[in-house]
Amino acid sequence: MELSRIVDRLDEELGTADYADLDASANGLQVGPDEGEIERVAVAVDGVRETFERAIEADADLLVVHHGLSWGGFDRVTGRTYDRIAPLIENDLALYVSHLPLDGHQELGNAAGVADLLDLEDRSPFGELGPEYVGQRGRTADPYAADEVRERLEATLDTGGQPIQHLDFGPERIEDVAIVTGSGTDWLDDAVAADADALVTGEGKGKAYHEAQEAGIHVFLAGHYATETFGVRSLQELVGEWGLETTFLDVPTGL
Amino acid sequence: MELSRIVDRLDEELGTADYADLDASANGLQVGPDEGEIERVAVAVDGVRETFERAIEADADLLVVHHGLSWGGFDRVTGRTYDRIAPLIENDLALYVSHLPLDGHQELGNAAGVADLLDLEDRSPFGELGPEYVGQRGRTADPYAADEVRERLEATLDTGGQPIQHLDFGPERIEDVAIVTGSGTDWLDDAVAADADALVTGEGKGKAYHEAQEAGIHVFLAGHYATETFGVRSLQELVGEWGLETTFLDVPTGL
Amino acid sequence: MELSRIVDRLDEELGTADYADLDASANGLQVGPDEGEIERVAVAVDGVRETFERAIEADADLLVVHHGLSWGGFDRVTGRTYDRIAPLIENDLALYVSHLPLDGHQELGNAAGVADLLDLEDRSPFGELGPEYVGQRGRTADPYAADEVRERLEATLDTGGQPIQHLDFGPERIEDVAIVTGSGTDWLDDAVAADADALVTGEGKGKAYHEAQEAGIHVFLAGHYATETFGVRSLQELVGEWGLETTFLDVPTGL
Amino acid sequence: MELSRIVDRLDEELGTADYADLDASANGLQVGPDEGEIERVAVAVDGVRETFERAIEADADLLVVHHGLSWGGFDRVTGRTYDRIAPLIENDLALYVSHLPLDGHQELGNAAGVADLLDLEDRSPFGELGPEYVGQRGRTADPYAADEVRERLEATLDTGGQPIQHLDFGPERIEDVAIVTGSGTDWLDDAVAADADALVTGEGKGKAYHEAQEAGIHVFLAGHYATETFGVRSLQELVGEWGLETTFLDVPTGL
Amino acid sequence: MELSRIVDRLDEELGTADYADLDASANGLQVGPDEGEIERVAVAVDGVRETFERAIEADADLLVVHHGLSWGGFDRVTGRTYDRIAPLIENDLALYVSHLPLDGHQELGNAAGVADLLDLEDRSPFGELGPEYVGQRGRTADPYAADEVRERLEATLDTGGQPIQHLDFGPERIEDVAIVTGSGTDWLDDAVAADADALVTGEGKGKAYHEAQEAGIHVFLAGHYATETFGVRSLQELVGEWGLETTFLDVPTGL
Amino acid sequence: MELSRIVDRLDEELGTADYADLDASANGLQVGPDEGEIERVAVAVDGVRETFERAIEADADLLVVHHGLSWGGFDRVTGRTYDRIAPLIENDLALYVSHLPLDGHQELGNAAGVADLLDLEDRSPFGELGPEYVGQRGRTADPYAADEVRERLEATLDTGGQPIQHLDFGPERIEDVAIVTGSGTDWLDDAVAADADALVTGEGKGKAYHEAQEAGIHVFLAGHYATETFGVRSLQELVGEWGLETTFLDVPTGL
Repeated sequence: MELSRIVDRLDEELGTADYADLDASANGLQVGPDEGEIERVAVAVDGVRETFERAIEADADLLVVHHGLSWGGFDRVTGRTYDRIAPLIENDLALYVSHLPLDGHQELGNAAGVADLLDLEDRSPFGELGPEYVGQRGRTADPYAADEVRERLEATLDTGGQPIQHLDFGPERIEDVAIVTGSGTDWLDDAVAADADALVTGEGKGKAYHEAQEAGIHVFLAGHYATETFGVRSLQELVGEWGLETTFLDVPTGL
Repeated sequence: MELSRIVDRLDEELGTADYADLDASANGLQVGPDEGEIERVAVAVDGVRETFERAIEADADLLVVHHGLSWGGFDRVTGRTYDRIAPLIENDLALYVSHLPLDGHQELGNAAGVADLLDLEDRSPFGELGPEYVGQRGRTADPYAADEVRERLEATLDTGGQPIQHLDFGPERIEDVAIVTGSGTDWLDDAVAADADALVTGEGKGKAYHEAQEAGIHVFLAGHYATETFGVRSLQELVGEWGLETTFLDVPTGL
Repeated sequence: MELSRIVDRLDEELGTADYADLDASANGLQVGPDEGEIERVAVAVDGVRETFERAIEADADLLVVHHGLSWGGFDRVTGRTYDRIAPLIENDLALYVSHLPLDGHQELGNAAGVADLLDLEDRSPFGELGPEYVGQRGRTADPYAADEVRERLEATLDTGGQPIQHLDFGPERIEDVAIVTGSGTDWLDDAVAADADALVTGEGKGKAYHEAQEAGIHVFLAGHYATETFGVRSLQELVGEWGLETTFLDVPTGL
Repeated sequence: MELSRIVDRLDEELGTADYADLDASANGLQVGPDEGEIERVAVAVDGVRETFERAIEADADLLVVHHGLSWGGFDRVTGRTYDRIAPLIENDLALYVSHLPLDGHQELGNAAGVADLLDLEDRSPFGELGPEYVGQRGRTADPYAADEVRERLEATLDTGGQPIQHLDFGPERIEDVAIVTGSGTDWLDDAVAADADALVTGEGKGKAYHEAQEAGIHVFLAGHYATETFGVRSLQELVGEWGLETTFLDVPTGL
Repeated sequence: MELSRIVDRLDEELGTADYADLDASANGLQVGPDEGEIERVAVAVDGVRETFERAIEADADLLVVHHGLSWGGFDRVTGRTYDRIAPLIENDLALYVSHLPLDGHQELGNAAGVADLLDLEDRSPFGELGPEYVGQRGRTADPYAADEVRERLEATLDTGGQPIQHLDFGPERIEDVAIVTGSGTDWLDDAVAADADALVTGEGKGKAYHEAQEAGIHVFLAGHYATETFGVRSLQELVGEWGLETTFLDVPTGL
Repeated sequence: MELSRIVDRLDEELGTADYADLDASANGLQVGPDEGEIERVAVAVDGVRETFERAIEADADLLVVHHGLSWGGFDRVTGRTYDRIAPLIENDLALYVSHLPLDGHQELGNAAGVADLLDLEDRSPFGELGPEYVGQRGRTADPYAADEVRERLEATLDTGGQPIQHLDFGPERIEDVAIVTGSGTDWLDDAVAADADALVTGEGKGKAYHEAQEAGIHVFLAGHYATETFGVRSLQELVGEWGLETTFLDVPTGL
């Protein structure tokens, strides 16, 4: 399939343009020529040298990632930027990036994946960022005990051997859960305002401990990487349906 | 001792004014009247409701913290801000804050405390932020094996039961160590440029994993709280020398 | 009545949210806890130590003012800010502020009150500020002589003993009057463009003299305080209708 | 004398360039050709149509004012701007402006003139604005009673018939006086910090009343125009010494 | 006809207000009184001393130009600004300016005039600038050879003796032509994206050569002045229809 | 020679760091790895696909240019940016850029080269840009007739067949000449203020015609490319002295 056609279809599906002014990440095609035929697509959470090398080994023509190379642009192609871009160009490997659009997608996104894992119902967008959302919330049919949530997350997520941190300041039983994957503790107040019993996210700034305590809400820190594999795996499935060969490159960081 | 006199002495010792344009934190006296007699001083890492309540129980007149209430100012004294400020005012407890000035102080600071713990020599300022520094670097007399560094940190720091994460991408033996406590992975490139073998910090953003790997450097993530008790404990000692009663309020967060 | 319910009703009546980006004042609840039962409401033009003390003496639970404490936010609760906030907190007195929303309200507002005093008819919003208004204009049934306007204002307003200044550069008879209370001379050109014969405001910058002279319009400077008691008195009446005890704290400044 | 030579000498004497980034007023030559011979110089506080017409009647070639036409520049020469600039150009009348440089000049300036009137000694710059000053402070040999200060000001200043307002919140006897002419109440806190007993200025924002009360300082509001005739009269004397005919155009506004 | 009536009709026809935030030029009446009777209107591309003098010789009351005096406003009326504004005021000559609104007008505008010259059909707006356009595109009924386009332009435009530069990097035959007069090479990528075979503009920055070469598109640089006489001539015709005497002042610059 | 050593020596010679905040161009190494051995250096005015291809044909390891790829940074490596960067990376060709530092260098720079061509003496920096300069001025031993200057420039510069435009508004004989190569007409007023008889530059905005006419100064527009070959040829000579093979890639654009 033509590269430009894949890019257009992904941009449309993910609403890339809607996030243009909200996201430091340059979403969409980030490295690649105007034309090119794509046969094999790799997906990964992080667009870094290790995933680039593994995509090249896997003979991929296109790599789709959640975290790309360009955060606010670059002035030069030198140092680490050179070391990352060079193998892409030398091996005709295009790089497509979807950061916040993929976090916030209500079916394919990272938060939606965590919500699936927790069997949440009555879902709605959560995690306002300007006019868009970067997360999701929902309710459980039967309330969880706080420990059950942690156990479920631990059983399924690849946390690279790290424990899931539980700030255990909420009610005994958890019914309403708000989710913002990655670094989501900035939405802790929104979760409280929305009467959520728990916020599930990836990593937390130090101040989250006391904010959770003072607000009386559970916070589960389940790993930045671990909570963000869902989106790219959804995209893998999607482009697979378009008839392309696909592969997922798993590089858990424990962070 | 007069409150204003303590404030002036701390401001001078810490160079508060030099960090005014660099730090979102409003350093110096953050809550308190112009006049007041201080007899008992409590110190804590975080200025939050729990430490305020414990300082009040301890009958302190002044609480000195690393993380205060005002990050870019507030428009209103409502909600969580009210709940934090009200007990201070109702109990005549003044709040003194020193964030980056305390991180960067080359004798009393947080990084200096970690450097002591690792027996580093030939120390110099590290972690440029505009014209100031927020960390420290040094050399060991005898090189450490990578595991030894982690073991030393674990033996001494109160990580709230969390493991210390080690991104094990540096050389076998560690001689040069750069330290920025709290959230210090933004200085990873500076550490590499300074030929450090390891960066010790508190917490790490997800991208630090690959940056460390690509740069070939060790990174130790020893906890935001755990790496930042040194500074306030130094200040405790300092004001103790001025003849005031003091107490350290330990509230480890595991973050 | 629950504090939060009063706040919500006032915010809705006054359109607080519409002025959020236009006003340096943080309108709405400015100091106070999330919960609290309100029995007695005081109103005043200025939120300062004197009115706080008098509200406390009057045993009020809530003080509603036109000029609050927070103009662009504060970094610290020290000095004059401490001296003002402390009595509020120590005496469980909440502070609600309405600055431009109250100036511009077409029934309850300050300009509307001056228009009542002058028996103006055919009223419409005046004093554009972005998409909102901060004043009002109208016509008299029978034209005033210029002196009559000044006399009417002097007879009714509490100017603290100061004379009303009259820049006597308009036509002999006054039919169309534009009003912006407080500091309204920035709208002098708008008044001229709207074919007003006179602009009534509180205080004037020096340049207003020549602008009025060159434009051929009357300007009446009737005092900042004196022209801005109407709004809070309207709110006093409003919350009185909700069944709350109320009191007006009059502290004329002569400015 | 050549216009450009007068402009250069005034700019040098007043330090026009030092205030370039501090003052909204475009100081220096504001309207005029590159070349022109000047014989007669008029001075006035305000650069407006009335003073322009009177300068033209007086056959002046140059008008020196404190308040000019350009505050932040203009996009068009239409409306009031046209009506003011046209007579200048049609009558070959150049306009020289000195706003903050003239306020702050320690010998020729407006504050210095008020200090002369009050027989202040031990004078020093007051009223910081970035690296410059816009006022002056000094001490009396013998303390004044508060009323004496008001009486002295009233006896000498041309207030256009308006009373001088006295915010009577300071000590019984006045020794230290801070002066910022025009609109100087923004420096009230600086006056308090400098242990002044009184601040003398021209006009005051409404909030000055309570700030003065809470700080315990006298404030005298002696009129914007009335406190700002000193500077241009000093310049009149100065250019008179250069051999030019001069005249002062007095247009008191009562503001 | 009343000046203000002409100004209102031109502003409405040209949509002056729509370009207010897009254009550094202060469009509309730029120099002139509020009232005045207009009998004779001159038009010119540039509003400069030479055209002002020729308009005065021609006894015009109003001069309509494409390039005015005010680009971002001016702080002073001195030097070159004085030398240009003075003759306007001294001779009661008003100045009306229309920059981008006249470039982008789809019937009267500069690009529309070039499109007429090239007999383009199927025209549509081109040259996005925010929500507006500053150019036009269209198709030829019969394709041109590249040389024919240059010859046509040279035959009609007054280039002041300068050759038209042709960056000859497009296809052999030209059907689709995009036009932005003046300095239009910033829209070269837009022209390529719109599948144009050629971009016709006035002057080009140096980098346009390689951008055209790499994109494979013809660029014709036909002179800033030469491509921008159409708009003011259309306005000449328009105000002529309103019953006013008109004249076009041709001052080709060769630039 | 090591690439990093060449880069350091060029940066030091050209004062790259001094222009960091003044220049939109990212000066210094713009594309290239941290390490690499350089044997052959090509120089060119423009860093574009044509010069990249010719440098690759010439087997160069490093290309030094005046106009690079990065003007304010890029968000993506796609489209034209991809097409330019890809051949650099695929062929191990590093790109070093020096824009304003090379314009302003008083011995090696572009303006200095034009001054040599005109045998100017008593040279000094010209063309202020913040604290730096981007041009040069000087005097001739014997005055030129205006035509002689044009003839000299035409005889030596490679203008790609385009005529040199002469705005012939200065005095009969030319002694003082100010030079800013490329687009230098923004310094026309500075040239007049410096009593220059002529400004030599590359290309001119349309308004330069009338500004020159009104100011009474000669302007010579000798081509952007044509006036900017001097700097890179000086660098060619310089790196040749360091023992490297060099070549100049001449691609005149006529612009």
